[in-house]
Amino acid sequence: MQNHPISITDPDDPRVAPFRDIRERDLTGRQGLFIAEGEVVVRVLASSASLCRPQALLVADKRIGALADLIAAWPDGAAVYCASQPVLDRIAGFPLHRGILALGEKPEGGQRAAAISRVAADDVFVVAAGIGNHDNMGGLFRNAAAFGARAVLLDDRCCDPFYRKAIRVSVGAVLRTPMTTGEPLEAILDRLHAAGVEVLAFTPSARETLAGFRRQGPVAVLLGTEGPGLPTSVIARCRPVGIPMKGGFDSLNVAATSAVALHHLTSPALSG
Amino acid sequence: MQNHPISITDPDDPRVAPFRDIRERDLTGRQGLFIAEGEVVVRVLASSASLCRPQALLVADKRIGALADLIAAWPDGAAVYCASQPVLDRIAGFPLHRGILALGEKPEGGQRAAAISRVAADDVFVVAAGIGNHDNMGGLFRNAAAFGARAVLLDDRCCDPFYRKAIRVSVGAVLRTPMTTGEPLEAILDRLHAAGVEVLAFTPSARETLAGFRRQGPVAVLLGTEGPGLPTSVIARCRPVGIPMKGGFDSLNVAATSAVALHHLTSPALSG
Repeated sequence: MQNHPISITDPDDPRVAPFRDIRERDLTGRQGLFIAEGEVVVRVLASSASLCRPQALLVADKRIGALADLIAAWPDGAAVYCASQPVLDRIAGFPLHRGILALGEKPEGGQRAAAISRVAADDVFVVAAGIGNHDNMGGLFRNAAAFGARAVLLDDRCCDPFYRKAIRVSVGAVLRTPMTTGEPLEAILDRLHAAGVEVLAFTPSARETLAGFRRQGPVAVLLGTEGPGLPTSVIARCRPVGIPMKGGFDSLNVAATSAVALHHLTSPALSG
Repeated sequence: MQNHPISITDPDDPRVAPFRDIRERDLTGRQGLFIAEGEVVVRVLASSASLCRPQALLVADKRIGALADLIAAWPDGAAVYCASQPVLDRIAGFPLHRGILALGEKPEGGQRAAAISRVAADDVFVVAAGIGNHDNMGGLFRNAAAFGARAVLLDDRCCDPFYRKAIRVSVGAVLRTPMTTGEPLEAILDRLHAAGVEVLAFTPSARETLAGFRRQGPVAVLLGTEGPGLPTSVIARCRPVGIPMKGGFDSLNVAATSAVALHHLTSPALSG
């Protein structure tokens, strides 16, 4: 409970340097930090559900009143800045209609062991291989959180889930969902298998359908990219499961697939 | 089987006027016509599955060889133009990396009676109320086509499904899925009920879950916008159904909801 916002009048003020030219910085990365944009996502970052530490907050002057509770609850030691809309736009490098940005720290590495430890019979994991589209990445996390997935495991070919748009599409789920990143897919499968998790590889080539699948214990939903799909060698290590399509389609969008799979696997009436 | 492409060298050539400044024209509309962009979508437009009539085709010179079959099969009387990449970019008004555009005619109006006639017991309809986001609209159509929905019924508050991006996100499904547009939601419900279709209103307020629902005959999936949701008066006329969420989420993205609902309702093992 603190935080009189510090007024910024010069877009080049070094205190707001992390918020400068957001789009260019999105492309080069931020060394363990990320930008959250918009009230919904920033509120997740500041909430007790967040796995990320809030650093600085930057809001438009005109929004200070409406965001008073958020500003008051912003952690001690983490700065709160405000600026007029023109200054804000010049800092961000584009018209920031949402009027609120925050800087956060990604969770520490070394979560891998924790993410797959003490696996319970009703746990469901999501494993993503080579997902390069930030919309899909955001959708995947949104669905994982909405259906209570235990963790999201991203292989080393996936894009960064902390990319601004992915966070926004996820409605903040990226900030509150346990995840591991940067590991080869084979290593992820090794650890899931060692923990007794059955890995369902979603592929149009499968004979078994999701609708007919009934789970026996912890499961993981393994999703690849739409075009090339999962490598044969990977599918061979897993239980292939398909979602039959009509009209010449062979696959759904990957985020849609995650929703269908998670609904089925987390509904006791369907897959108990 | 015809079609030596007509070479266009002047971006202001009146023959390619419908392709000019695509983005601005997207916003003002095209009086019954639409632009399809990219090979996948244009191939759907030209296919026998399409419900839309192809008019003109415009391709980059460098792609003529790879698209020879498409050009050869382009309907008699519908023009085929080609242009160098710089001319193409100037026509379109932005760098057209995909190198292929087509102009098509939306289906005739007056499909309403046909879309809800001779309803079969296993028919599934999708009804969308107030969907204003073109990504969601495209995703909705993609899922409707992939699960074999009988038709998509859009109320008069929905955005145009023939918007270029919606068509692209739908992977062409907008061009091949029977639909009705422009009707008030209440009138759509009247006609569905008269045809004996049970309308499932998806809402977080529902007590009944989708997972527990077993269909007795033809059904419709009614989806509203994420924020305000469906009006109480509408829900009261339908069978409210929910998809339970965890972690404080109260809804999925609308396209994801359509995928979950259609999978459940079209899988005999789940909802037979």
